[in-house]
Amino acid sequence: MNNTNKNTATLLISAPDRKGLVAVIANFLLQHNANILHADQHQDSQAGLFLMRVEWDLNDFATNEHDFQAAFSPLASEYNMSWKLSFSQQKPQMAIMVSQYEHCLADLLHRYRIGELACDIPLIVGNHENCRALAEFNGIPFYHIPMIKEKKAEIEAKQLALFEQHKIDFIVMARYMQILSGDFIDKYPNKIINIHHSFLPAFDGAKPYHRAHARGVKLIGATAHYATSDLDEGPIIEQEVARISHRDSVEDLIKKGRDLEKIVLSRAVRWHLDSRVLSYHNRTVVFD
Amino acid sequence: MNNTNKNTATLLISAPDRKGLVAVIANFLLQHNANILHADQHQDSQAGLFLMRVEWDLNDFATNEHDFQAAFSPLASEYNMSWKLSFSQQKPQMAIMVSQYEHCLADLLHRYRIGELACDIPLIVGNHENCRALAEFNGIPFYHIPMIKEKKAEIEAKQLALFEQHKIDFIVMARYMQILSGDFIDKYPNKIINIHHSFLPAFDGAKPYHRAHARGVKLIGATAHYATSDLDEGPIIEQEVARISHRDSVEDLIKKGRDLEKIVLSRAVRWHLDSRVLSYHNRTVVFD
Amino acid sequence: MNNTNKNTATLLISAPDRKGLVAVIANFLLQHNANILHADQHQDSQAGLFLMRVEWDLNDFATNEHDFQAAFSPLASEYNMSWKLSFSQQKPQMAIMVSQYEHCLADLLHRYRIGELACDIPLIVGNHENCRALAEFNGIPFYHIPMIKEKKAEIEAKQLALFEQHKIDFIVMARYMQILSGDFIDKYPNKIINIHHSFLPAFDGAKPYHRAHARGVKLIGATAHYATSDLDEGPIIEQEVARISHRDSVEDLIKKGRDLEKIVLSRAVRWHLDSRVLSYHNRTVVFD
Amino acid sequence: MNNTNKNTATLLISAPDRKGLVAVIANFLLQHNANILHADQHQDSQAGLFLMRVEWDLNDFATNEHDFQAAFSPLASEYNMSWKLSFSQQKPQMAIMVSQYEHCLADLLHRYRIGELACDIPLIVGNHENCRALAEFNGIPFYHIPMIKEKKAEIEAKQLALFEQHKIDFIVMARYMQILSGDFIDKYPNKIINIHHSFLPAFDGAKPYHRAHARGVKLIGATAHYATSDLDEGPIIEQEVARISHRDSVEDLIKKGRDLEKIVLSRAVRWHLDSRVLSYHNRTVVFD
Repeated sequence: MNNTNKNTATLLISAPDRKGLVAVIANFLLQHNANILHADQHQDSQAGLFLMRVEWDLNDFATNEHDFQAAFSPLASEYNMSWKLSFSQQKPQMAIMVSQYEHCLADLLHRYRIGELACDIPLIVGNHENCRALAEFNGIPFYHIPMIKEKKAEIEAKQLALFEQHKIDFIVMARYMQILSGDFIDKYPNKIINIHHSFLPAFDGAKPYHRAHARGVKLIGATAHYATSDLDEGPIIEQEVARISHRDSVEDLIKKGRDLEKIVLSRAVRWHLDSRVLSYHNRTVVFD
Repeated sequence: MNNTNKNTATLLISAPDRKGLVAVIANFLLQHNANILHADQHQDSQAGLFLMRVEWDLNDFATNEHDFQAAFSPLASEYNMSWKLSFSQQKPQMAIMVSQYEHCLADLLHRYRIGELACDIPLIVGNHENCRALAEFNGIPFYHIPMIKEKKAEIEAKQLALFEQHKIDFIVMARYMQILSGDFIDKYPNKIINIHHSFLPAFDGAKPYHRAHARGVKLIGATAHYATSDLDEGPIIEQEVARISHRDSVEDLIKKGRDLEKIVLSRAVRWHLDSRVLSYHNRTVVFD
Repeated sequence: MNNTNKNTATLLISAPDRKGLVAVIANFLLQHNANILHADQHQDSQAGLFLMRVEWDLNDFATNEHDFQAAFSPLASEYNMSWKLSFSQQKPQMAIMVSQYEHCLADLLHRYRIGELACDIPLIVGNHENCRALAEFNGIPFYHIPMIKEKKAEIEAKQLALFEQHKIDFIVMARYMQILSGDFIDKYPNKIINIHHSFLPAFDGAKPYHRAHARGVKLIGATAHYATSDLDEGPIIEQEVARISHRDSVEDLIKKGRDLEKIVLSRAVRWHLDSRVLSYHNRTVVFD
Repeated sequence: MNNTNKNTATLLISAPDRKGLVAVIANFLLQHNANILHADQHQDSQAGLFLMRVEWDLNDFATNEHDFQAAFSPLASEYNMSWKLSFSQQKPQMAIMVSQYEHCLADLLHRYRIGELACDIPLIVGNHENCRALAEFNGIPFYHIPMIKEKKAEIEAKQLALFEQHKIDFIVMARYMQILSGDFIDKYPNKIINIHHSFLPAFDGAKPYHRAHARGVKLIGATAHYATSDLDEGPIIEQEVARISHRDSVEDLIKKGRDLEKIVLSRAVRWHLDSRVLSYHNRTVVFD
């Protein structure tokens, strides 16, 4: 598995655009003997922003994480950079939240098992019992935390405590059919990935397949996005569609949609794990 | 060109669903010595509707159009059928309406010239002058009828008179950037094909590419539909999407969108010409 | 699950084309009080063949399986029909053969578990041990039958005995990395579905992803087909492709290819289960 | 049209990979006051190659073309770079070669007319007369040079003389149905773009649609590649596919294929014009 065995560092940077930023960063890395494997940058000229992802081999690299922080910080301040450093061998801790549908969970766990996802999954939280067997077959603790409308705050506090205890870096809502509170989401900004079962902005909200069928569309879709306090309005990471016809009932749409949801959610999770996604102004850059 | 040389009849039928409809129709055709080339049917069980398209070879067929009508009508009445008969060698008369963008028009005219579209195009109506050269290169009369907001009723009357005079069967709005009045549309029910530059119902109305860019979607689309008095709400005939990325500006979306619009509109026109599209309850069956 | 609860019969027919076949079949079904839910037919004019799929509701149907056979046989003889009757509530017995890669197996078993596949899976045969846990988690007996080149005939006899014992109707090779002998395949004509990891006929044979990478293609694919004694030359049921770029290593192709293989194989299996696939002259009709 | 109005320079570089290349290039550009708009690089670790595309704004740039060459050459030598510099406002001279099918030509000329292609088209060469009207409608001189097998060398000399006279930078074979000699191709290495009507390497050579139909594939494709002396074996720039079914005759494949060919060829031409394509070891990097 190339993802899990490699030994690289990745830097994601956004900064007000100005001349010389590429040179500044390339020189800094060269001074520390980095062998750049991949550098990609993007200018959003409308927003006046410079966005960059650079990945380098750590084998010859002259600096450890701590020294890098110390050395890079003054530069980052000078150029007003926001930046995030990650290491391929420090696996992020990913939590999964589910309800009754298990297709996205099953897909993610299979990918995890065969080494496609370079992360640890310390726990799965479900508001129903029925995904327990699947979780435990994959050796992952399953916490059944039913949702009771009147006790939502309390229940979310319980979930958050679990995530904190397990040092969770980011959360995947694998068809978790509850709406998270704004307070919950604020704890994990751009760190909660949700899958919505339509090509947003079409059919946001409830029952998108039913509404797609009623409207007579010829394509259905799925959208992975970072959750924000505006439901289904967060920055889009990935979308995909599939063709349907007049022969397809709502049940067929749901069935075809499952395949879309799995594909789209797993791409978003992989890209997030690879530090390929940079979110700004309610949109994303996905470096390829 | 298989479309233009073949000699077939096609019957589109919708009726309240009941047992034996396939047999009734197959027997009727057999009695008149029809060699069925293609029969396809669909049940909408929710709507209780039976929908069918059947195409047969006219070479051995025992009946002409007039006699067919006389013979089939009692049957149609008995089973409450709505039906439409068409003949591959009676070319429909198609009008095209355009504004300033010529890509859809250029695409349709090229397909027409090389024999892909089995129709006549007696005229093109534009509210700007700039598509005249293209129309005339293809040997089709071009009528420049500018739109003046205050005189819309008068101008539409002029357009309708032209269409009547040329015995127009159906109209293609090839990025015609004016909204037709309800009265105009009522004259051609399910006979005006429009192309909207988004994957409806997302981004209906004005400036869809700008809004798609602002929302940060990862796919853009185009939708061909029959025009109804509810703008962008008519029955969808075809949709297609293309992938975009953070690198794409609004101008890039417009450029990529042109290819989508051409593909989607031309498919819808071809299917309409082939009597493949049956519209009911604000949706379509597209027989393949 | 609409597939598993419905109570229908499906007839697949191929016959030399002649006038009146649709009427003959429709009348026969009407006489036995069948409510046709879906009828689709296709003429291959080059081959002079008529091909049809018709599905009807069994609730009012006047005949049982035995009587149907007796009543339909004379008609079938008269018109030289090949035909196959199946019932939605008589689940086919499907065997799966696997090697070391478990992604296709995991995908099929998940679909089976959530009711997407209307079949029984009495056993899974693997030439390696490593899919046992997955099989047993899903409650399906796993038989480990290692392949030894010198004893191939003996080993295949053992596999065939198992399949006979479990009354297997058809076999899915879910990335089973052994070549079946002609004798084996002849026992299950058009009843062994294989997945090949390229868009055939490109890259037939070994190591298709390596060769696709070497050739510098921009798309990779997967193909599901019925196995014949000509390796990778059998009738194609389904194909799909995915976009790749210069950034993708062979490992990336393998990873992206897994998703293609799962999608394509599961579609082929579903269509086969739905009696949608009719194979003739080394090609397939897939009725939709 | 953003392509035609912008004022940028683009540098394509390939070099043996070594540490510091990004810094070297970024520093050089910064010293000359370049505002980098877009930098993308790729390492082919197997080939030990570093490949880069960098585009910058010329408005503040301190150097003209001549001085750039003088200043950059020593650096390029030191690092063994192959490099190519282009300017958005120096339009390449593109020749088009055609035979009888006009769909690709019509598509390219339409894109040219509406400003999608940032090039000049000084001439079109056809071995049949029938594209003359289309060429001349677009104001482009058309040369009818029939091919006579026995005089191929002479005829190609005539074509080459025309191209030289018009200072042609690169050639597009828009379904030109003649095989160019190796000598001809050697004059324009990686500068002749051909469209082949299959998803190569499947169905290379003659009559791909007939062979695709005979094989019963479910997808057809088109491939744009640089012509080399090995027919259909040159580096692939772009590929696309479309779905077909058992209903599609060879004529339908040809019709659907036309749309693929237009899309794929026009993408390849645009990317070539944008200096996005870098060819090495019979493969391409297409910078996005």
